[in-house]
Amino acid sequence: MANETTVRFGILGCAHISIKLCKAISKAPNATLQAIGSRSLDKAAAFAAENSLPTAVRVYGSYEAVIEDDEVDAVYIPLPTGLHVTWAVKAAERGKHVLLEKPVAMNVAELDRILEACEARGVQFMDGTMWVHHPRTAKMKEALSDEQRFGQLKWIHSCITYNPGPEFLKNSIRVKPDLDGLGALGDIGWYCIGAILWTVDYELPKSVLAFPGATLNEAGVIISCGSSLHWEDGRSATFYCSFLTYLTFDVTVLGTKGCVRLHDFTLPFEETFGYGTFSEASELDYGKIEQGRWCPKPNEHVVETEFSQDVLMVKEFSDLVGKVKCYEMKPEKAWQVMSRKTQLVLDAVKESIGKGYQPVEILT
Amino acid sequence: MANETTVRFGILGCAHISIKLCKAISKAPNATLQAIGSRSLDKAAAFAAENSLPTAVRVYGSYEAVIEDDEVDAVYIPLPTGLHVTWAVKAAERGKHVLLEKPVAMNVAELDRILEACEARGVQFMDGTMWVHHPRTAKMKEALSDEQRFGQLKWIHSCITYNPGPEFLKNSIRVKPDLDGLGALGDIGWYCIGAILWTVDYELPKSVLAFPGATLNEAGVIISCGSSLHWEDGRSATFYCSFLTYLTFDVTVLGTKGCVRLHDFTLPFEETFGYGTFSEASELDYGKIEQGRWCPKPNEHVVETEFSQDVLMVKEFSDLVGKVKCYEMKPEKAWQVMSRKTQLVLDAVKESIGKGYQPVEILT
Repeated sequence: MANETTVRFGILGCAHISIKLCKAISKAPNATLQAIGSRSLDKAAAFAAENSLPTAVRVYGSYEAVIEDDEVDAVYIPLPTGLHVTWAVKAAERGKHVLLEKPVAMNVAELDRILEACEARGVQFMDGTMWVHHPRTAKMKEALSDEQRFGQLKWIHSCITYNPGPEFLKNSIRVKPDLDGLGALGDIGWYCIGAILWTVDYELPKSVLAFPGATLNEAGVIISCGSSLHWEDGRSATFYCSFLTYLTFDVTVLGTKGCVRLHDFTLPFEETFGYGTFSEASELDYGKIEQGRWCPKPNEHVVETEFSQDVLMVKEFSDLVGKVKCYEMKPEKAWQVMSRKTQLVLDAVKESIGKGYQPVEILT
Repeated sequence: MANETTVRFGILGCAHISIKLCKAISKAPNATLQAIGSRSLDKAAAFAAENSLPTAVRVYGSYEAVIEDDEVDAVYIPLPTGLHVTWAVKAAERGKHVLLEKPVAMNVAELDRILEACEARGVQFMDGTMWVHHPRTAKMKEALSDEQRFGQLKWIHSCITYNPGPEFLKNSIRVKPDLDGLGALGDIGWYCIGAILWTVDYELPKSVLAFPGATLNEAGVIISCGSSLHWEDGRSATFYCSFLTYLTFDVTVLGTKGCVRLHDFTLPFEETFGYGTFSEASELDYGKIEQGRWCPKPNEHVVETEFSQDVLMVKEFSDLVGKVKCYEMKPEKAWQVMSRKTQLVLDAVKESIGKGYQPVEILT
């Protein structure tokens, strides 16, 4: 039931992902869907009908109308990346809390305009990365932080790919320079970079060096690419993202004593279960392995969750918004810090590709 | 039972891996252990006793004595890499067939001297890479070659690591410049490069670019490193190898329609079973995945084998040697081509590291 701490959402746009968010908002105990807006009223009405939205949900023929609605507390913005700065800033200026789909902006300068607008009005910012909200993620952090079991972190690798086919590569907004102009790097490289930064507690790498041979479309949008990332203490990471290959959601984290592997890290194989393996040195007998006789299979771990990660994202965001709205607490800045660091690294990888695969230093 | 096609092996040196090879030779139906030599007779005799070698096995106090033994058909050489060129050439010149432990040489120039000696005497050459002989490898090739299921190859990633500890890093021959001077790149990067080349049917990449931040010891030997590899048609690969982290034997091969993953590729989790997963596009419903609802778990495949991969290597080598020895057939050159291409790429990665992580073209 809605009460005064329930966060009333407005959604800007009828993207595919909006279907998922409508459901997540309806499941989250502290959120409710107040309004949805599209560039045309017909489209918004059709979306509402197709997805059986409650009749109480207000249907608007413009994004403007959603952010002008005084009974909307927060907006979810799944618009193409090129439109984020305009609409996120407008929403923040109207006092709306902002849940912004990733990639958050075309570059960190645009993101800074969004974050400044949020800070100026004291509204909560969070990006739409869902996997960080899965309880598996906290369990992984426990394993990675256990010096006895995992040792020191040395290396991270992430690979996220999918192959949406020729029609997508020709017409999708995700490959258009003025819409989702960061292409695969923004759409899925965002997750790879995010996973890497999450693992190192968001300590920025000193430099990145993109792999030669990134694939760009005719308009110069990245279709596939990869990069290595480097920290001064010798830790390093690599990632690969592509719109040209079969579906993968892989992350491998290697420490001196253990290894964590996930093959479903951005999207769990099942809605309420997150899989993963953890292997640790205490199970090894190097003497036997030297003779090639024995090597233990990784231990599979499954983390169950009552709410799926999309619902948990909405719930966490709404908790924070509720605190600002009802108890005059300050917005939690950790989320904008994570988004900004992810964007900084993403910008550096793009720059490295643009410079013909030269190393790019990351200035903090 | 030994007959005239049975290949009589001599082993040069009492390395750990020699224990495994003694067992493999005893299990292979077409091989027998004739002699083992060490730098001291005491050491060779102790090895023979500790490993319960048959009393018929001749025990020598020098490598020379093994290759001078007229009843030795073939030698297995597990000596430190820096000694390979000397002893492989001597053995070939004495008409012995050569099974040479990897990495085969300090560089391709040394390998060429070995291969020239083998060709001059018409003896068979093979390197000690075992995983290629596992029947799983042939099954993988079937999957990768199935255009309907796997599509076009786009990307390969391999990661092999282990953490043998501080004593090893200080004293092991595998980190000494005059012994195994290629360090982790030679010991385990060899497998990564081999897996990548095997996947592309040994078509050499156009260039490699090592990841910045390789770890070298005080003597300049590589302790951990990685690299990307690039083909002109857009295929690419990455690998990472390290003596500093927990044990991994990973390879991931990504095509437009499918993905093959192994986590035990150089050393199967069980002696007579090789594991792996294969995922294919026919099981996907992108519409559902777009809405974040469903993503299939990879299908696990297990390939059983009567003989473990080390025995199969000895058996394959002995088959070829038997043909040369008894039927005057020519040595099979495919094996030396694979070794040489692996060494060429390895040399290029080392050069890229030495040049401060500059791209290195591979000349064919």
